Amino acid sequence: MTNRTLAISCVVWTVAVAALMASSDEPIQPIPPARIANAAMVELGKKLFFDPRLSRSGFISCNSCHNLSLGGTDNLRTSIGHGWQEGPINSPTVLNASLNLAQFWDGRAKDLQEQAGGPIANPGEMASTHVLAVDVIASIPGYVDEFSRVFRTRDVTIERITESIAAFEETLVTPNSRFDQWLAGDATALSSQERAGYDVFKRTGCPMCHNGPAAGGTSFRRMGVVEPYQTASHAVGRVAVTGSEADRQSFKVPTLRNVELTYPYFHDGAVDTLGDAVDVMGRVQLGHRFTPDENASVVAFLRTLTGDMPSFALPRLPPSSDRTPRPTPFR
Amino acid sequence: MTNRTLAISCVVWTVAVAALMASSDEPIQPIPPARIANAAMVELGKKLFFDPRLSRSGFISCNSCHNLSLGGTDNLRTSIGHGWQEGPINSPTVLNASLNLAQFWDGRAKDLQEQAGGPIANPGEMASTHVLAVDVIASIPGYVDEFSRVFRTRDVTIERITESIAAFEETLVTPNSRFDQWLAGDATALSSQERAGYDVFKRTGCPMCHNGPAAGGTSFRRMGVVEPYQTASHAVGRVAVTGSEADRQSFKVPTLRNVELTYPYFHDGAVDTLGDAVDVMGRVQLGHRFTPDENASVVAFLRTLTGDMPSFALPRLPPSSDRTPRPTPFR
Repeated sequence: MTNRTLAISCVVWTVAVAALMASSDEPIQPIPPARIANAAMVELGKKLFFDPRLSRSGFISCNSCHNLSLGGTDNLRTSIGHGWQEGPINSPTVLNASLNLAQFWDGRAKDLQEQAGGPIANPGEMASTHVLAVDVIASIPGYVDEFSRVFRTRDVTIERITESIAAFEETLVTPNSRFDQWLAGDATALSSQERAGYDVFKRTGCPMCHNGPAAGGTSFRRMGVVEPYQTASHAVGRVAVTGSEADRQSFKVPTLRNVELTYPYFHDGAVDTLGDAVDVMGRVQLGHRFTPDENASVVAFLRTLTGDMPSFALPRLPPSSDRTPRPTPFR
Repeated sequence: MTNRTLAISCVVWTVAVAALMASSDEPIQPIPPARIANAAMVELGKKLFFDPRLSRSGFISCNSCHNLSLGGTDNLRTSIGHGWQEGPINSPTVLNASLNLAQFWDGRAKDLQEQAGGPIANPGEMASTHVLAVDVIASIPGYVDEFSRVFRTRDVTIERITESIAAFEETLVTPNSRFDQWLAGDATALSSQERAGYDVFKRTGCPMCHNGPAAGGTSFRRMGVVEPYQTASHAVGRVAVTGSEADRQSFKVPTLRNVELTYPYFHDGAVDTLGDAVDVMGRVQLGHRFTPDENASVVAFLRTLTGDMPSFALPRLPPSSDRTPRPTPFR
């Protein structure tokens, strides 16, 4: 890092901390800009995130279902896995995922590194194995050179693969939304409708769950508190992790950051529009029927949570070698 | 374009033309850098190229099978289409595709714009229709604004969609390979083995088909001239376009540019390594059995044809609106 870059980083960081202090009485806090501790590891992780060779088919990468051109999700109700299998649950966005208390809808992975290993070996998703994924990456000279630079060893392991992917994902934060500008003191950053929507959002109790820098990701909650949530989904929620019946239909509260980009909504992806999502949340979680004006203003507020998207050049992946195991999409 | 950018472009262009003249007696000619006539249209086309909403599933984009992280191809024997259908033929690279005399292996599209409309509506590929694709794009305000800027109308048509994609694809050239540096007069750009490989390449007749700036793409040739090419592929070749039996098993000669990235090889993708591809070409097309030394040197030469990859930020796609037709991957 050059002195100039360091100085700019310090200024950005100081401004972010100042904004955090200025807005300390609000339930939603600003997102600080990414702090990149190990740039070489982030670059390696970025390549791996985009590399479909981590899947058995050679066709599905992390970016397939957490598409960084589309707000870090696939905008499908449930995702498409190996062999066009229909996934059991809606892909959560990877944007700001580092701010979640745990990963996956049921929180079964404690952090991003643990999460990253899941889909690679899930037969319904990327359908590879950790052994095969390591064999593939270790057979690609360009990757081995990069592992050597990052880890001081040419030994490729699944832990180093997932650590690198997680390091990249930690950079995928979206600061500087209009709402964050308003939190930092710029009264002109929001329209009167948007400010009114935020007031409705707070007054009706939404921040009980949607709080913190990510406006979510801080707790698990039952879907259907006041009235049952009707769904065709077979997902059982956090009971799968805790074994406690009290956690049935309990899911991690999703972030509201960039929510205008991360449709369709809920763990089952059953709702296509923000207006419908606000309506359902009001009824089943809060026992509140939003008036059309309230609904429109909350939706307007939610659209102010779209921040600066991560910006980087499309990665170019090192070519396979003659000894790289070949993808087997059709057998 | 600023004066400075214009000046740089002129210098680059002049150098390229000088290189062309210096190397005019060689069968492979340098690739000139991209000339961008309409930057706004290129930007629009880039977004569309990456947009999976042009497919019925919302999952497959142009970039899925012509992956610009992977040399403009998918590195699969044949591609994966809607519903995980197994494609009939190997995806040709989109890199330098503007230099081809026609598009598709059988040349059934006269240019990139005509090509771009094919996969969108092909039931085995993106499985949308031109009507649906237009409905989707026309429902997305961010796209309509961009069409308005580029075409001076808010009327989205399939012709404007494919014209934009083609404008982007025309920028996907890969100049400045080590071989091009050598053509331009830098004697140190190639090793003695690589120069020897180029000599073998010329002496054994490869440039009869692999010639011009793309080292291919200038003609259709029968696969299996000297001895039959054994394949499990049902692709019939150019006879499908011309109706002439003489064109059975005749395919467009693929470019050799970036060939180290565009494995597996041939229209059926049956060959994984460059060494095997050179061996097969020698036997079935030229009646020549390359010695191991010859093979290794030709492969070394072929690896010098990797040029500068197009570099650009991963595009961010405008979000769907409440009225956007939703993807239907599973029905």
